[in-house]
Amino acid sequence: MYQTDISLTTHGEGDIIDLTAEVRSAVAKSGVDEGLVNLFITGSTAALTTIEFEPGVLSDLRRALSVVAPNDIPYEHDRAWGDGNGRSHVKAALVGPSLTIPFRKGSLLTGTWQQIVLLELDIRSTRQRTVHVAVLGS
Amino acid sequence: MYQTDISLTTHGEGDIIDLTAEVRSAVAKSGVDEGLVNLFITGSTAALTTIEFEPGVLSDLRRALSVVAPNDIPYEHDRAWGDGNGRSHVKAALVGPSLTIPFRKGSLLTGTWQQIVLLELDIRSTRQRTVHVAVLGS
Amino acid sequence: MYQTDISLTTHGEGDIIDLTAEVRSAVAKSGVDEGLVNLFITGSTAALTTIEFEPGVLSDLRRALSVVAPNDIPYEHDRAWGDGNGRSHVKAALVGPSLTIPFRKGSLLTGTWQQIVLLELDIRSTRQRTVHVAVLGS
Repeated sequence: MYQTDISLTTHGEGDIIDLTAEVRSAVAKSGVDEGLVNLFITGSTAALTTIEFEPGVLSDLRRALSVVAPNDIPYEHDRAWGDGNGRSHVKAALVGPSLTIPFRKGSLLTGTWQQIVLLELDIRSTRQRTVHVAVLGS
Repeated sequence: MYQTDISLTTHGEGDIIDLTAEVRSAVAKSGVDEGLVNLFITGSTAALTTIEFEPGVLSDLRRALSVVAPNDIPYEHDRAWGDGNGRSHVKAALVGPSLTIPFRKGSLLTGTWQQIVLLELDIRSTRQRTVHVAVLGS
Repeated sequence: MYQTDISLTTHGEGDIIDLTAEVRSAVAKSGVDEGLVNLFITGSTAALTTIEFEPGVLSDLRRALSVVAPNDIPYEHDRAWGDGNGRSHVKAALVGPSLTIPFRKGSLLTGTWQQIVLLELDIRSTRQRTVHVAVLGS
């Protein structure tokens, strides 16, 4: 199993980063031809998924997440800890921290309009994030 | 690692297909006795999950998804591209494209009332879909 | 591949169990130093995710799930089967049954405030649950 990390800086709540090129590069470096790549984001206020990396639909996704975790309601988490990021935790738990994606002949089997993305859901103006990448196969 | 595809035709927005028998068949063909099967749907307007394959609860799931991505609101994606499927992308990103399921002695460890399903979320009347299957173990 | 189970009793709708210590213990028992651990919950009315295991934010998560699957609306599933747990199925399908988490030198790459949790979503007062654990790597 080949393991590596993708390290990046995010720029505030709602930032969405396209990881596809870096995941493709990790698969290439692994030397594995056919297999699976697992991605995992450490931390409880960010999440991983796939979506078309197009500004309009990214806005639509942000709006949808705010239906279940609006900005303008009180959170028990914020009452207890004063963090102000209760909504960030809730959105991250719903979307989830892990993705596993197949590849063949070194090519990810994602669609042309299906990018691998990191959702920054926390409220700090910048954050360092690490996505763990594990490649297995033959 | 054994890899294969499940190819199928879906019939419009809200179609939900039970993939359990085909996944079981792929595991049997792999010859692997104990391991994991990863499923991944290519494309950004469909998703994979597990649910009881019962018409009532499938309707309930469709209704729930429409709470976060209703039919009757404007989408930035549709404004930019005129696709009309902004809601499809949003639902797919929330549910997610991948699942990993264990099996032992060739049997999936899903429950009796827990089926593996493809959610067709796009608005075209028919679509060809490919679910990639990767089996690993010993 | 090393496989084991985590067996536990849950205590009603909304119970959330921290599985992190048991997952860590399974990884230790596997003898694998670097790899991936896959978790899968059998059954269609429970789910797995990661979140900070803090009572406030767990309440916030329950509230968020009730936005898409409220207690006080009719469910087609309940009409057909009289189970009363239509909302449980819907929430479980949205959060999902599987998680795959990397580890290195025997340590899970989860964050300090990121616990692995089982969400009990069913309405029975107690339930036996089994989480399947598969460890792979070298």
